[in-house]
Amino acid sequence: MELPAISLSPHSGEPLYRQLYLSIKSNIHSGAMPDGMRLPATRELAVSLGVNRATVAAAYELLENEGLLNAHVGRGTFVNCPAGDGGELISFASSRPADELFPMATVTEILREASARPETLRTLLQLGSTLGYQPLIEHIASRFDGAPHAENQGVLISSGCQQALDLLARAFVQPGDLVMVEDPVYPGLREVFHRSGARLIGLPVTEIGLDVGSLDLALRRERPRLLLVTPDFQNPTGATLPIESRRSVLELARQHNVTLVEIAIYRDLRYTGSDLPSLHSLDHTGAVVHIGSFSKIAFPGLRVGWVCAPREAIERLAEAKQWSDLHTDHLSQYILHEFARSGALAVHRKQVLEAGRQRLSATVAALEGTPEVAHFTRPEGGMSLWVTLRAGIDSERVLDMVAGRVSFLPGAAFAVSRRHANSLRLSFAGLRPAAIHKGVGIIGEAARQAAAAAPERYATPHMAIV
Amino acid sequence: MELPAISLSPHSGEPLYRQLYLSIKSNIHSGAMPDGMRLPATRELAVSLGVNRATVAAAYELLENEGLLNAHVGRGTFVNCPAGDGGELISFASSRPADELFPMATVTEILREASARPETLRTLLQLGSTLGYQPLIEHIASRFDGAPHAENQGVLISSGCQQALDLLARAFVQPGDLVMVEDPVYPGLREVFHRSGARLIGLPVTEIGLDVGSLDLALRRERPRLLLVTPDFQNPTGATLPIESRRSVLELARQHNVTLVEIAIYRDLRYTGSDLPSLHSLDHTGAVVHIGSFSKIAFPGLRVGWVCAPREAIERLAEAKQWSDLHTDHLSQYILHEFARSGALAVHRKQVLEAGRQRLSATVAALEGTPEVAHFTRPEGGMSLWVTLRAGIDSERVLDMVAGRVSFLPGAAFAVSRRHANSLRLSFAGLRPAAIHKGVGIIGEAARQAAAAAPERYATPHMAIV
Repeated sequence: MELPAISLSPHSGEPLYRQLYLSIKSNIHSGAMPDGMRLPATRELAVSLGVNRATVAAAYELLENEGLLNAHVGRGTFVNCPAGDGGELISFASSRPADELFPMATVTEILREASARPETLRTLLQLGSTLGYQPLIEHIASRFDGAPHAENQGVLISSGCQQALDLLARAFVQPGDLVMVEDPVYPGLREVFHRSGARLIGLPVTEIGLDVGSLDLALRRERPRLLLVTPDFQNPTGATLPIESRRSVLELARQHNVTLVEIAIYRDLRYTGSDLPSLHSLDHTGAVVHIGSFSKIAFPGLRVGWVCAPREAIERLAEAKQWSDLHTDHLSQYILHEFARSGALAVHRKQVLEAGRQRLSATVAALEGTPEVAHFTRPEGGMSLWVTLRAGIDSERVLDMVAGRVSFLPGAAFAVSRRHANSLRLSFAGLRPAAIHKGVGIIGEAARQAAAAAPERYATPHMAIV
Repeated sequence: MELPAISLSPHSGEPLYRQLYLSIKSNIHSGAMPDGMRLPATRELAVSLGVNRATVAAAYELLENEGLLNAHVGRGTFVNCPAGDGGELISFASSRPADELFPMATVTEILREASARPETLRTLLQLGSTLGYQPLIEHIASRFDGAPHAENQGVLISSGCQQALDLLARAFVQPGDLVMVEDPVYPGLREVFHRSGARLIGLPVTEIGLDVGSLDLALRRERPRLLLVTPDFQNPTGATLPIESRRSVLELARQHNVTLVEIAIYRDLRYTGSDLPSLHSLDHTGAVVHIGSFSKIAFPGLRVGWVCAPREAIERLAEAKQWSDLHTDHLSQYILHEFARSGALAVHRKQVLEAGRQRLSATVAALEGTPEVAHFTRPEGGMSLWVTLRAGIDSERVLDMVAGRVSFLPGAAFAVSRRHANSLRLSFAGLRPAAIHKGVGIIGEAARQAAAAAPERYATPHMAIV
């Protein structure tokens, strides 16, 4: 079996052996390195990672001590991660849709129809436009008809939201530029801009989204190139920005001449309450960059997202796209266009919303019965909520304790300017209510034990680190 | 109709109006802006591009003077590019496969089979591994079984060769690093490394590929981070590196401790002569990075390529891939895996080789009857060859003269350290022999007229510009 990606950074403050230990543990937790998998010999892994053999040995030793690896002399080292008390690993770790809800009859019908259209397929198999598959572009663009300045806007199809963020970094950010983001924030957003050489400023997110007062203060002091906001069901907090705050964010961006990027990938996943207008639709200057995707509402394995933005921005993004991968895969664009235009997406969405509502309710109910939880957000949609444990309980410690039974991402994974050491994200959308109740129970029990053993130094988790 | 991407660079030496003029002209030549298409009003385009209205007006005026645009007062400005003497535009501009050869019955059968496997499809629709679809990874890896150091190598699936190059730039190149490439070279390769902040050194390519003597000299003076070579049917020259030169390149890379990247995307398209071993298979140090793709031998609209490299390199590439687009589209990986493992790819390849052989022969025969051609390469495979016109004939001038009837990419598009002003690339793989004869005839006639009018200053086309 192929070893999953292990990334070690020599520039990280973390020692290499500990980076390796954490990376393998996270792979075990996520199921990427399943129970019984044979690991490479220490020498072999050391060579392949370009590190000292002692580094690998130290990481393996830590994992053995935690019972996550078993070493058998002469046979090798194996992952030891039996599912907790006969059940499967309950993973709150990934914000991805529930695949048991995928409408396979519809998808197979779309494929059967495609197979009856060889000349359409022939065109799809040939090289195409950097902007995307024209019928899909027009379908997406039609969603913005009637918006202010629609006639000066364009659409670019990207390989998911992740690539849309990457193209923005390439087209708009120079090394040393300031970029303002929410804190906590989706790690893939932070990493894209971090790697582009941007200096990131994390703005606090409250129960009602980005803190507008902090944004105002920050913009008085600094002049960022970009401001990225997820107004609906922010990842990881699930928070939604109220209408007045949306207007304030737009006004501040306009006043300070900052390019405002709206990440709208969770927007169609509202389970309760009423839709709020997007920043894009509220914007009378026609300047907002709006990112959408099919990955949360439909199928993340088909990598299709989009950017709607002023034409000038689209031209720059298209050039970045050209040198990134020429264009997004044609067949997936075709399938998702058929799925959307036929109305099947709208039908699927009803199922997804009903399931999401139940799963969110189950998560909230389970958390309400967990005294070690000091606080948690109560989203009205999306895929995740944000749990803050009582002061002194470190979420990475809790993650260690539940290894093999439950997984989640600890707050540190979402950190920008704050540590979030006693917080964690629970992504509930992919789990059935029974598993949610059981998983939250296990986390709660581990948090109780961790609280009993917690040293004082964890008591100030919000220390700023930049 | 959506306007194709127009990219203007304020840092280019070229004035903006001329960049815009060239960009629109190239879009008209390529067919991206077809005959009769309405262009935006000058003010509208000026706003969307963020340039002065006079810039757009000047570009439109040049295009009108060349007869490529027609302005009708009150109605707007339209592309005027009727197909030459009743025929279609003959495009030698793109190195892409002939889509009339695509085996549509096989592809539709694969889709029908997929539609009968809903549980496989369900997995494909869900988020997957950054490294790629495991069965495809294993299929690609099996091609390298028995190669030296195969056990220390890994495979990463990329969204085509273009993304493989981009991931290499991200994972291995820091701003200011030196990167050695062939000159002339595929523009998408040059742009990726140029944008990563690398300093590019272009090494001359002769009829027998990369000039090893120049490489030797360059490596005595400079220490590059990467050396990228296309040993088989190089784009644009079609040249193939002889076996002794392959050994020399490997030895020089080893001596100077340079990471050697082999671009092998045309390798399976040999029409005559005998296969030569790849750099990867000749390399006894296990250090070569090998890039392949399905885009030239199968379908470029499904964006799937791969990198085979030492595991340490694969880990770094996988991290870059994670933040670029999470992973490559699943459905296309599945389809191309089915296409390859079933043997259908091998059957298709026979057709492609037979057609390619005929098209290459037709191109060579047509060029032999063209006295304004001073020289051209005689590839044994691939998709393109390199034509050098008699001194004093500028290929961009010839391109202007054949506008609307024939298109090709002028030598300047492939320039790294040399101008290649009197050269051009003919990509023949997508054209039938009759079109090739007619197109080369039109180019030859235009070259004859250009020669009669050529000023003396074009007589030294190989002036180095860096």
